[in-house]
Amino acid sequence: MVVAMTTKAGFLRARRPEQKQQRYAAILDAARELALRDGVGAVSLAGIAAEVGMHKSALLKYFETREEIFLRLAETEFHEWAAGALAALSTAGPEPRQVADVLAHSVADRPLFCQLLLYSPLTLERNVSLEVVRAFKQAVNASLQQVVPALQRALPALDAEACFDLFAMSGIAAAGLWQAAHPSPQVAALHAEDPHMALHPDFRASLVRFVRTYLAGLLAR
Amino acid sequence: MVVAMTTKAGFLRARRPEQKQQRYAAILDAARELALRDGVGAVSLAGIAAEVGMHKSALLKYFETREEIFLRLAETEFHEWAAGALAALSTAGPEPRQVADVLAHSVADRPLFCQLLLYSPLTLERNVSLEVVRAFKQAVNASLQQVVPALQRALPALDAEACFDLFAMSGIAAAGLWQAAHPSPQVAALHAEDPHMALHPDFRASLVRFVRTYLAGLLAR
Repeated sequence: MVVAMTTKAGFLRARRPEQKQQRYAAILDAARELALRDGVGAVSLAGIAAEVGMHKSALLKYFETREEIFLRLAETEFHEWAAGALAALSTAGPEPRQVADVLAHSVADRPLFCQLLLYSPLTLERNVSLEVVRAFKQAVNASLQQVVPALQRALPALDAEACFDLFAMSGIAAAGLWQAAHPSPQVAALHAEDPHMALHPDFRASLVRFVRTYLAGLLAR
Repeated sequence: MVVAMTTKAGFLRARRPEQKQQRYAAILDAARELALRDGVGAVSLAGIAAEVGMHKSALLKYFETREEIFLRLAETEFHEWAAGALAALSTAGPEPRQVADVLAHSVADRPLFCQLLLYSPLTLERNVSLEVVRAFKQAVNASLQQVVPALQRALPALDAEACFDLFAMSGIAAAGLWQAAHPSPQVAALHAEDPHMALHPDFRASLVRFVRTYLAGLLAR
């Protein structure tokens, strides 16, 4: 396969710091676009390199591995999701169900986040250096330190541990329900034969229902 | 790499039907052992072939792909899990918490099942033929048709839809909590530096707590 030597930005080799930053950002943007179009699992390093118009070897001067690219995107997703969730929680109504809906929609609104919640422990944290994992975990912890107290303000009947459980299990449910709602072509063909086989076809509705139910359980505990 | 031409069973080429069945079972056993030792994600077709003492090309006369091997194991896991869960539910105490504990332990007792719950939608259902996916989905449905009514008998306050949600979300939680409890070496190194970073270190306890809480939420709905 022939890979073009010029990037979309039109320069051959990034020499100046601002050119390097531009290229770093272009690689992340390309990976994000491909993941939203094809799914994270289907995006290869070669695919990202082709999209951004670089050789794979040049791309690997910016990132250790394919997995680092997606873990850096996951860092950004955690920061952006936390900012959005904080803003939405500050205007949520007083009923637990309203808080549950705000939390569920804040996750469901971010399809890349839902995928990266699944792939982070599965593959991304396995093929990068300790330093890259550390930066990602710090981003997760920063989100947690912001969102858990905001959940506690919105749900005064829950303690910090229960709010952490709500945060963590909503993430796990989002990752699993996303997979169920985005089946393989083979499974989609089976569902077309028998629609009753599709167990969780509507991702957002399933996640809202899960968060409402789990929060009701935490309140009953 | 040199791969031995003789199998553990000591025959060079399987000619008779019973030899073929033996070899089919030996391949599944090898894949199961490797997955329990190294994790499903780390087991390659070459690794299975080496373990069973066959060439990869000979192994591919028995299974379409690496993913078929694991999806066949997942079929068996679903059948065996359902049989165990049915037996345990028939002797569970009358309290919802007792039913929750029986369900959670029936899953936590099967480490290969917990892993295959994650990998089935993610990769296994993507690299096999429609017929192999169909057989797997029939096994899932057969489990569901047995376990959901048994849950309803044990939890008369819940309707069939709520019992299905309990079944499905317990599986999604088990898949996610398993990942959280089995981090990459990089993440394990971070946890050793700061044990507070380990969010769900005890898989079984986390799953029991989840199923109890989610069931309480379903009962409150």
